[in-house]
Amino acid sequence: MQIRDEFASTALLTDQYELTMLAAALADGSARRRCTFEVFARRLPHGRRYGIVAGTGRLLDALAHFRFGPDELAVAAKFLDPATVDWLREYRFTGDIDGYAEGELYFPGSPILTVRGSFAECVVLETLALSIFNHDSAIASAAARMVSAAAGRRMIEMGSRRTHELAAPSSSRAAYLAGFDATSNLEAVRSFGVPGAGTSAHAFTLLHSGADGEHEAAAFRSQVDALGIGTTLLVDTFDITRGVATAIEVAGPELGAVRIDSGDLGVWAAQVRRQLDELGATGTRIVVSGDLDEYAIAALRAEPVDVYGVGTSLVTGSGAPTAGMVYKLVEVDGIPVAKRSSHKQSRGGTKKAVRLARATGTIVEEIVYPEGSEAPATNGFQVRELQVPLVRGGEVVDGVATLAQSRELVARGLVSLPWEGLKLSAGEPAVPTTFLG
Amino acid sequence: MQIRDEFASTALLTDQYELTMLAAALADGSARRRCTFEVFARRLPHGRRYGIVAGTGRLLDALAHFRFGPDELAVAAKFLDPATVDWLREYRFTGDIDGYAEGELYFPGSPILTVRGSFAECVVLETLALSIFNHDSAIASAAARMVSAAAGRRMIEMGSRRTHELAAPSSSRAAYLAGFDATSNLEAVRSFGVPGAGTSAHAFTLLHSGADGEHEAAAFRSQVDALGIGTTLLVDTFDITRGVATAIEVAGPELGAVRIDSGDLGVWAAQVRRQLDELGATGTRIVVSGDLDEYAIAALRAEPVDVYGVGTSLVTGSGAPTAGMVYKLVEVDGIPVAKRSSHKQSRGGTKKAVRLARATGTIVEEIVYPEGSEAPATNGFQVRELQVPLVRGGEVVDGVATLAQSRELVARGLVSLPWEGLKLSAGEPAVPTTFLG
Repeated sequence: MQIRDEFASTALLTDQYELTMLAAALADGSARRRCTFEVFARRLPHGRRYGIVAGTGRLLDALAHFRFGPDELAVAAKFLDPATVDWLREYRFTGDIDGYAEGELYFPGSPILTVRGSFAECVVLETLALSIFNHDSAIASAAARMVSAAAGRRMIEMGSRRTHELAAPSSSRAAYLAGFDATSNLEAVRSFGVPGAGTSAHAFTLLHSGADGEHEAAAFRSQVDALGIGTTLLVDTFDITRGVATAIEVAGPELGAVRIDSGDLGVWAAQVRRQLDELGATGTRIVVSGDLDEYAIAALRAEPVDVYGVGTSLVTGSGAPTAGMVYKLVEVDGIPVAKRSSHKQSRGGTKKAVRLARATGTIVEEIVYPEGSEAPATNGFQVRELQVPLVRGGEVVDGVATLAQSRELVARGLVSLPWEGLKLSAGEPAVPTTFLG
Repeated sequence: MQIRDEFASTALLTDQYELTMLAAALADGSARRRCTFEVFARRLPHGRRYGIVAGTGRLLDALAHFRFGPDELAVAAKFLDPATVDWLREYRFTGDIDGYAEGELYFPGSPILTVRGSFAECVVLETLALSIFNHDSAIASAAARMVSAAAGRRMIEMGSRRTHELAAPSSSRAAYLAGFDATSNLEAVRSFGVPGAGTSAHAFTLLHSGADGEHEAAAFRSQVDALGIGTTLLVDTFDITRGVATAIEVAGPELGAVRIDSGDLGVWAAQVRRQLDELGATGTRIVVSGDLDEYAIAALRAEPVDVYGVGTSLVTGSGAPTAGMVYKLVEVDGIPVAKRSSHKQSRGGTKKAVRLARATGTIVEEIVYPEGSEAPATNGFQVRELQVPLVRGGEVVDGVATLAQSRELVARGLVSLPWEGLKLSAGEPAVPTTFLG
């Protein structure tokens, strides 16, 4: 796979039917009709009480690369008429996009992205927009639960090996957005400026074996020599108690941290803490990893754990690997439209959204209402408009939230939830959403 | 995100600790020790009876792009010593790789990849290799269950919007490998030659609405005019029975297919089939989609469904979004090594593997045994060696399976399973694996 050549353009990260619909709409003239598409989730993943909007920044970048060059046009020409291929050659999105700021909480039906323009220019963005939002929001939403379960302790994302190699940096970004402190993934460090972190693997200890057996001390000495006393030594390759003793013997009581990656982490954390303290290594921190999810993190809350390393459950969305968002046509030439067959009914018309909060900041309700109608009554609550401009006339507006700003927005959002909203158990959305109009 | 620049090299799709271990090993001289790393899954996802090896071809391509250019070295230089950075600048994998052919069945403990070389050159490939195998094998393994459930009916992969935009083409490839017939993803068409397919979305029908209401017939006419009589019309935007009547009115009884994307698909398939037949459209096929997984596909086996469109469950591995494979150091300078703390024990030493089958071709056992020991007794069964050479001296060997060949291997593998192995219910691995030595 020639990665450089193939992903220089994002245009083919698209379902074929977007382009065949385009061809038919260009031929019959409907391609020019003014449309609004909205991105929303019909429901949250089972039992989840809130979601975190993530992917907005990546979508805006990907939009700038949504161009049909000669390679992309060659693929399109195999199943499209020449007029459609010509149209794609000149494609630039010229419409407007509004949306919830990246990092914002969302609930069922929240109109997190509103895309306006001609049918043609909007429809072709469906697949790309959904791929990005469905992935990034799934990861960020799971990550936020883990962050709140960790109650302020340091969190390292280390799940790259458990997800697609090119999804991994985006997962790291989404985890950081949601409050993780660092990532193991170097591409995320480069692409998104997420702080890097790392410990060591069992292979490094095993490497220092010989015909005469194990040389754990040699491995630890080598690591300390190369990486300094602040490093994290992995103490569970052979025997944890012996590993801890060896670690402090080699590194002294100023050792940065030890990592435990197996066994009953709660029991071991307490025992290792006592052992470290007895050895005078009272400042040496304890990193735990190994199949941690938000429930395991919460269960370790009473134990002397300093850092959580989270992998598989993070990058797989902890049971909800995709956010289930859809990209629906809601308005054509000012007229609301909606599918009405079966249970997948949608609400037609372009929508606005506000969130109401008590004076304390605790949110109480989200209200989604038709654009152009009067703003809803707020009953004395604080009210905040949720949609912000993202693109105007095809150009990204100034002031779109940076990753750091979005990270702060997540932190503020979690604080704004009613206390039930932070419970890890399965439940209803943390606040009700009212649909007016 | 500048996609072109950032993913030209695959070198940073790597966990930071691979490079800090490298630094320590270079400094103490152990980096030159001859090592074997093996990729295997300790277990199959819960209840699964077999797995499908997928990702080998993509790994070999990614290996060729594992190069540290100026951009990658700038990231590495922030946390590594100059000698390590110099070593990375010259990095080329010069070792050997063997593995199960892509498309081969695997079971718990199957050594699906064996990487040999210096510690340094092998350890840095861990993250990339696992990301690719864990993703692609998870998708292919789920896809194979869907293919066997579909019992020969046509399968279209249409899950791009439910996974990371750059994971989507790999998912399409894995699905095709496992027996799907086509994909909606255009990048997969370009990158991997997977046949493209597509139908239409509700948005296209809704686009043809006016102030005076719905114009489903206009939408259908437009699509048929643009894409021909062989197209697939989506009939469930408003009312399925009326939609089918309109489709045949507009297109005539030679219409290629209708798609139903909502409702009770089994009931509707039967009813629509009757309706189509009564209208003389006996050759018009029925495509169903909408939250299909292997169980739903199997449940529709008695219904007149011609084509399944599968999305979410495919790209999320139908409950098992990652294959849980690990990359473990098993041998150093000819000496077997293994972690032994806790429940994550591994078997040391480089391994070979054979699979035994009856004369009918039905497999009965997998045997994993130490390299260099005598081949195991076969008790009159047919025996097949499972590992094939993939890389020699850093170069991909001739004759590595093409995607088409791997697809045939999956098909043969599914036929070789004992009948219990194809059951969709939770169970044990289809054949036992014996570990010798």
